Amino acid sequence: MNKHAIYHITDTPYAYGKNLNTLRVVLRTANGDIKECILCYKDRYDWKDEFLIERMQIDRTTELFDFYKADISVERNRYRYFFKLVDKGNNIYYLDERGLRNYKIPKDEATAFQYPYIAEGDLYKEVSWLQESVVYQIFVDRFFNGNKDNDPKNTLRWGTSVTPKSMFGGDIKGIISKLDYLNDLGVDLIYLTPIFKSSSNHKYDVNDYYNIDPQFGTLEEGKALVRECHKRGIRIVFDCVFNHSGDDFFAFKDILKNGEKSKYKDWYFIDSYPVDQKKVNYYSFSNHIKSMPKLNTSNKEVKEYLLKVGEFWVKEVGIDGWRLDVCDEVDHNFWRSFKERVKECKNDSIIIGEIMHEATSFLKGDQMDGIMNYPFKGALIDFFARRSITVEQFNEILGQNSTIYMEGITRQLWNLIGSHDTQRFLTECEDNIERMKLAIGFQFSYIGVPYIYYGDEIGLTGGEDPESRKCMIWEKDKQNLELFNWYKSLIKIRKDNLSLVYGDYKVLYCKENVLIFERNFNGEKVIVAVNNNYKKYYVNLGLDIMAKDLLKDGVVDLSKTLILDSMEFKVWKKEGMFAN
Amino acid sequence: MNKHAIYHITDTPYAYGKNLNTLRVVLRTANGDIKECILCYKDRYDWKDEFLIERMQIDRTTELFDFYKADISVERNRYRYFFKLVDKGNNIYYLDERGLRNYKIPKDEATAFQYPYIAEGDLYKEVSWLQESVVYQIFVDRFFNGNKDNDPKNTLRWGTSVTPKSMFGGDIKGIISKLDYLNDLGVDLIYLTPIFKSSSNHKYDVNDYYNIDPQFGTLEEGKALVRECHKRGIRIVFDCVFNHSGDDFFAFKDILKNGEKSKYKDWYFIDSYPVDQKKVNYYSFSNHIKSMPKLNTSNKEVKEYLLKVGEFWVKEVGIDGWRLDVCDEVDHNFWRSFKERVKECKNDSIIIGEIMHEATSFLKGDQMDGIMNYPFKGALIDFFARRSITVEQFNEILGQNSTIYMEGITRQLWNLIGSHDTQRFLTECEDNIERMKLAIGFQFSYIGVPYIYYGDEIGLTGGEDPESRKCMIWEKDKQNLELFNWYKSLIKIRKDNLSLVYGDYKVLYCKENVLIFERNFNGEKVIVAVNNNYKKYYVNLGLDIMAKDLLKDGVVDLSKTLILDSMEFKVWKKEGMFAN
Repeated sequence: MNKHAIYHITDTPYAYGKNLNTLRVVLRTANGDIKECILCYKDRYDWKDEFLIERMQIDRTTELFDFYKADISVERNRYRYFFKLVDKGNNIYYLDERGLRNYKIPKDEATAFQYPYIAEGDLYKEVSWLQESVVYQIFVDRFFNGNKDNDPKNTLRWGTSVTPKSMFGGDIKGIISKLDYLNDLGVDLIYLTPIFKSSSNHKYDVNDYYNIDPQFGTLEEGKALVRECHKRGIRIVFDCVFNHSGDDFFAFKDILKNGEKSKYKDWYFIDSYPVDQKKVNYYSFSNHIKSMPKLNTSNKEVKEYLLKVGEFWVKEVGIDGWRLDVCDEVDHNFWRSFKERVKECKNDSIIIGEIMHEATSFLKGDQMDGIMNYPFKGALIDFFARRSITVEQFNEILGQNSTIYMEGITRQLWNLIGSHDTQRFLTECEDNIERMKLAIGFQFSYIGVPYIYYGDEIGLTGGEDPESRKCMIWEKDKQNLELFNWYKSLIKIRKDNLSLVYGDYKVLYCKENVLIFERNFNGEKVIVAVNNNYKKYYVNLGLDIMAKDLLKDGVVDLSKTLILDSMEFKVWKKEGMFAN
Repeated sequence: MNKHAIYHITDTPYAYGKNLNTLRVVLRTANGDIKECILCYKDRYDWKDEFLIERMQIDRTTELFDFYKADISVERNRYRYFFKLVDKGNNIYYLDERGLRNYKIPKDEATAFQYPYIAEGDLYKEVSWLQESVVYQIFVDRFFNGNKDNDPKNTLRWGTSVTPKSMFGGDIKGIISKLDYLNDLGVDLIYLTPIFKSSSNHKYDVNDYYNIDPQFGTLEEGKALVRECHKRGIRIVFDCVFNHSGDDFFAFKDILKNGEKSKYKDWYFIDSYPVDQKKVNYYSFSNHIKSMPKLNTSNKEVKEYLLKVGEFWVKEVGIDGWRLDVCDEVDHNFWRSFKERVKECKNDSIIIGEIMHEATSFLKGDQMDGIMNYPFKGALIDFFARRSITVEQFNEILGQNSTIYMEGITRQLWNLIGSHDTQRFLTECEDNIERMKLAIGFQFSYIGVPYIYYGDEIGLTGGEDPESRKCMIWEKDKQNLELFNWYKSLIKIRKDNLSLVYGDYKVLYCKENVLIFERNFNGEKVIVAVNNNYKKYYVNLGLDIMAKDLLKDGVVDLSKTLILDSMEFKVWKKEGMFAN
């Protein structure tokens, strides 16, 4: 047995309550090393009965590891357990708190792992509507100008070239008037970049957390937007920055004016007085951006002020949750309180962090429901757009990404392929539509919430900011309708086949730039094939399955050799004709 | 390179703030597999400079793994890093979020690990006084009867045989009158089992969290005890049960009386009405103990009630913290609030959990400062008392135990060898004093807080509860003074040599029941040898060191062959004569 590969701790994602009466237990082993993995468990106060037995199943495999899982249940939710492992050479090992042993000890109970209690207060509650959603991100100033009257005086002509300071007049009324378009596309969750009062076009430097910027609209229009979304079965989240404020926020202005005597001086991190905006002698966002001073969220007043903002928009305006900017530079304690307060206003609201990296410490269930999954984006860019990694590497990155979180959280990650902070995916593809279509095919059939950055669906291009924030194209003849229809059909397939949302992920084939995998849920089996080659590919999976082609009509016999066309994406659904 | 052994996550204990300006980074590799382990790091917003370089050092080694560590610092505490590993075959690998690669990628930054910010609000603050303490646990009813007037009417004669219901009259005045004894022994932290009003002798079934049981004393006497402790440089913590109350607690009594109509019905977990104490149709502690109904600490009223209790005794009575009974069955959210509220009353107070197993989810810094280290006790019993495991296994269990927590937390674990819930250690040793002396020698020279269960120091014996709770023996001629003086000298050695508190732990020799290790801190080096054999043992460490024997007088040349007597414990301190 490969002893170095064995890993388990009594914490997420290796042990956690799925619900009050079910404990999920995960064990990592070396890939292909183990013949049988048995979970032995019992009530932790039961000193007389034998341990119960549950055979664990492989849930996910990466290049190096297999991840076994089992769901177990005992009365009153207090667990004691250990693992019995049989390797391919029939050697038997036991794993408990003391490590791996090749013999059984008489009193297993004494050194068994313990999951002492699944407490209501700690239980992470998955949000199924989020898992089933398709997100659409709108950069408000660039989506649609629905009200010329609120345009700032320096508004440019729609569609002209974009600079960091451009204003184009996009607004809330504009979004409302395009909700039918979004409904037609099939998205059901909108994420708006910030709309609070601020002097910039992106509004990530907030001047007033309680008011909508007049160039975007009024509070009443904000409420109308939420109402109109809900009417169409669309949910909506706003974007908020709690890491920093704008430098024209009242508290920072007070410090600029009163220096050390300001009663807000502990709201920020000031190095020395007087505050000097040329030297930036205070903590600020990113590389000393003077207009974005960092808020001290460990300060009680600041914390309470911002928590109230979090509550206000959910309670008063009815939004369905928050997307949180730079949330990884704000303390975990703040986010725990934020979750508590926001979920109390609306218990199925969602909290999604902008975290561009591995985020285990934020995604244990006590803080966020998910993050913007940038590692996913990176993998798709490298494999599909730039074609710089192998399919094995691609699959491995995704495997790493999915095994560090609880299953429910992994299903809630926002699987983006681009945002206002990155180059457009089509530009990453050097305008090759077929690469983008293949990538999107994968995106919509993988675990996690598919995510569309406004305009991607009609072929908008653009490099780094500000190019990635160009005006939406509304003239039908300038839109790429092939792409639009591709998105539309993929969304429909995902909505019609819940295995793409809730199913497992089992790789059937992974080499030579071809990835074929299946997803199974409640007896439904969907098989997905991706041929990332500019040539035909022949493969025989030898599956005794008749399957329906969900993109074209027709039924395919998957026991036969399959032909994948150049850069083709395939999605098949098993028919009920053969036993399997 | 052994790829399966490599492990790192951006969370405790693999990455955490040591202080606002220092990030501790830990990487696990296979034991002896790596020649050089380099941490490459930079400010996460720095896209122009090269990565900085820090060579990592081995901090701890177990049978399977080496644990490398490094402490790094960048301006504004926002980190990006990856690892460069060179194995013994001179193969070079790079480890980042995407896993292990044998080639360098051009844009390391994009896939580097990120520790986005060390926030004040998340920083775990070690408690140095706790790390330097020696704990003494008192089971109040059995320590000393200082006031006959408050004896319950069924009080038995001191020292007579003990049953689960015996009362012996030990009380707070008794403890006060024995503080000079404890001072002479050298302990400086007292932990009292519960003293709150309750009908049992152990008082783990609380009737009133705000009053001291009259058989133990008055609130004024409680305050006097704390004052008298502090006067002698002794700190004191009380024991509290928040998992359950007694069945005579007002809220449960109200439910018994009013059933479903009780306004306290959500304070507990009631299966059905009427509540039936014969059927125990409610959640209770352990195996359906009817007198200990489980409190619903996720309920806001219950939570607030109990948090106020936590504050009261710290603020009003001046105790130095809490030992928390069955705290692993209470939700993490409760303990986070508890920490916040208690530390606000006294910022260097301590919170120690009774958790008998691996407790990573409780010891991340946001909840407890330490736990009662039962895995440590288990290892010492198996190696020293029962002699049922090898020294290699012993060292491995300790290694596992110490590498799952942050370094500061590991130093704060209460390293007990027995408590009121276990057999006495001397009884586990079948009354062999030399086994116990050897075990204590190790206990006082290892990482973590040494812990004495009252009476262990004078040779008290006893099997499982109630035998483990016999009356303290105060007659000098019945005390084992050899043991008492052994404890006294070990305490003095620990107090005089801070390397035993703060030093690293490096094994020099580990086989044939002999363990020799060194501990280094601030230039001080202490070497400890344990010969767990009933015979002489000869060993040549070949260390170019002259060392002082801290137990006997004299200086030893550690380059020569050393003779360890049967069951001998040795502790040497390096003299400043040779460079090393």
